[in-house]
Amino acid sequence: MKVAKTIESVRRLVKAARRDGKKIGLVPTMGALHIGHISLIETAARSCDFIVVSIFVNPTQFGPGEDFQRYPRPLEADLEICKKAGVDVVFAPTTEQMYPQENLTWVSVEKLTEQLCSRFRPGHFRGVATVCAKLFNIVEPDVAFFGQKDGQQAIVIRRMVDDLNMPLEIVVCPTVREPDGLAVSSRNQYLTDAQKKEATYIYKSLQKAQEMINASITDCNAIISQMRMILNQAPSIKIEYINIVDDEMVQSTDRIAGKVLVAVAVRIGSTRLIDNIMIDVGGR
Amino acid sequence: MKVAKTIESVRRLVKAARRDGKKIGLVPTMGALHIGHISLIETAARSCDFIVVSIFVNPTQFGPGEDFQRYPRPLEADLEICKKAGVDVVFAPTTEQMYPQENLTWVSVEKLTEQLCSRFRPGHFRGVATVCAKLFNIVEPDVAFFGQKDGQQAIVIRRMVDDLNMPLEIVVCPTVREPDGLAVSSRNQYLTDAQKKEATYIYKSLQKAQEMINASITDCNAIISQMRMILNQAPSIKIEYINIVDDEMVQSTDRIAGKVLVAVAVRIGSTRLIDNIMIDVGGR
Repeated sequence: MKVAKTIESVRRLVKAARRDGKKIGLVPTMGALHIGHISLIETAARSCDFIVVSIFVNPTQFGPGEDFQRYPRPLEADLEICKKAGVDVVFAPTTEQMYPQENLTWVSVEKLTEQLCSRFRPGHFRGVATVCAKLFNIVEPDVAFFGQKDGQQAIVIRRMVDDLNMPLEIVVCPTVREPDGLAVSSRNQYLTDAQKKEATYIYKSLQKAQEMINASITDCNAIISQMRMILNQAPSIKIEYINIVDDEMVQSTDRIAGKVLVAVAVRIGSTRLIDNIMIDVGGR
Repeated sequence: MKVAKTIESVRRLVKAARRDGKKIGLVPTMGALHIGHISLIETAARSCDFIVVSIFVNPTQFGPGEDFQRYPRPLEADLEICKKAGVDVVFAPTTEQMYPQENLTWVSVEKLTEQLCSRFRPGHFRGVATVCAKLFNIVEPDVAFFGQKDGQQAIVIRRMVDDLNMPLEIVVCPTVREPDGLAVSSRNQYLTDAQKKEATYIYKSLQKAQEMINASITDCNAIISQMRMILNQAPSIKIEYINIVDDEMVQSTDRIAGKVLVAVAVRIGSTRLIDNIMIDVGGR
């Protein structure tokens, strides 16, 4: 496994692999790798011949007062995980590599970024779209892999790729969960054991939505109010939002139809956690 | 010469050329080709092995009330010009090919697009940057060629490519002028003969700036006021702006130093004309 610290070196490594006819897969991460990331790498390895994992805690997607400074950066452990998972190249640039001068160019995806997390993290998706555009232009992968856990991010990236005709495929992989249902996240390590137990109510609330939809309940307000009741059982959970939107997330919906994303964001202490499920009831 | 009407077909043609080891050059145009475009194609042919000219009147860079509808679209004549110039592929997509759904994703270059033309054409450079990002992603050229005549556009595109790490080189080619100095433009055909004669005062005003700078005058206000006097000799010219900015156009400047762009925009009747010169006095 090679570790590329510069744009030039990762480009050279990818170019050599491409010359050998290899299909290039990119797994963009902020590091602090966990079994969710490993599952992305494993999925990438099934369809690609050359796997690049980028590790970059991107400052432009953090707002003032967010956890940019304290975000975990266990680079040595991350490299070990990548090596074991069969990664070919880890691209781990410095901030100066990625932003050598004041960044003036921004990629924004309208409408999709006016809902859900955007209202609580203004500018977040602009930072995400911009850094992903940069990573795609640097690595030029055939396929890039994202987790369903960051559901809104996946929808935003897909739309950016579509709208800008970016020459790659986006694959979104299922959320990996702990045995108790908690979605695996780098931010879970901020939680105490007691908080971690309370955090399981997030997935419980999503399972409730799934049950109700399975029972043909289509009234979103009814579903959301049941979800709220479940989340309220966990005293430290502060709900940011519970929302049901259509699968392309152009708008929130009152009635379940077609493909919907049921999404939750909460705070437990100072830690922000998100989770979602995608449900297809067909026939819209 | 092949004419590709779809994204799929231009991609297939370029891919085949790349497999043959050819260096790909792209000349993005809105058609109505003239000797300025031909000079871009000729420059491209000197450094590239496979030349793609795109012809697309991009609706997202026109504002309400601008000349999108009446912009000339002489496709047959354009194809003839490209054929004679030795172009390999003309990419001439429909609007539906380029914008099959509501476009939600925009590429914006801040600061550079708050000056000069931007104040008179709000949203224009957002449309230009977005369609260029799309064309670069579709054609994946090694080099793209732009004219210095659209000086602000060239600076914006260069900065976009830098900031987003787009894997191509931007080459900016000198403005081509009529024998009387008028910068060649597709919009010149809107002018009557009398208006065309008045339009030569634009370049006369730029030559005045060059003379004054050659004479070591560094006070921008003095230069601009002399330029204004020259333009005012042409009764139908309405000045939109005369401005001197640093070459990366992050800010307008009071004193000539280093590389500067002297830029003019005027209206003659309902026709908007722009021109500029880049001057390097060294030592900033």
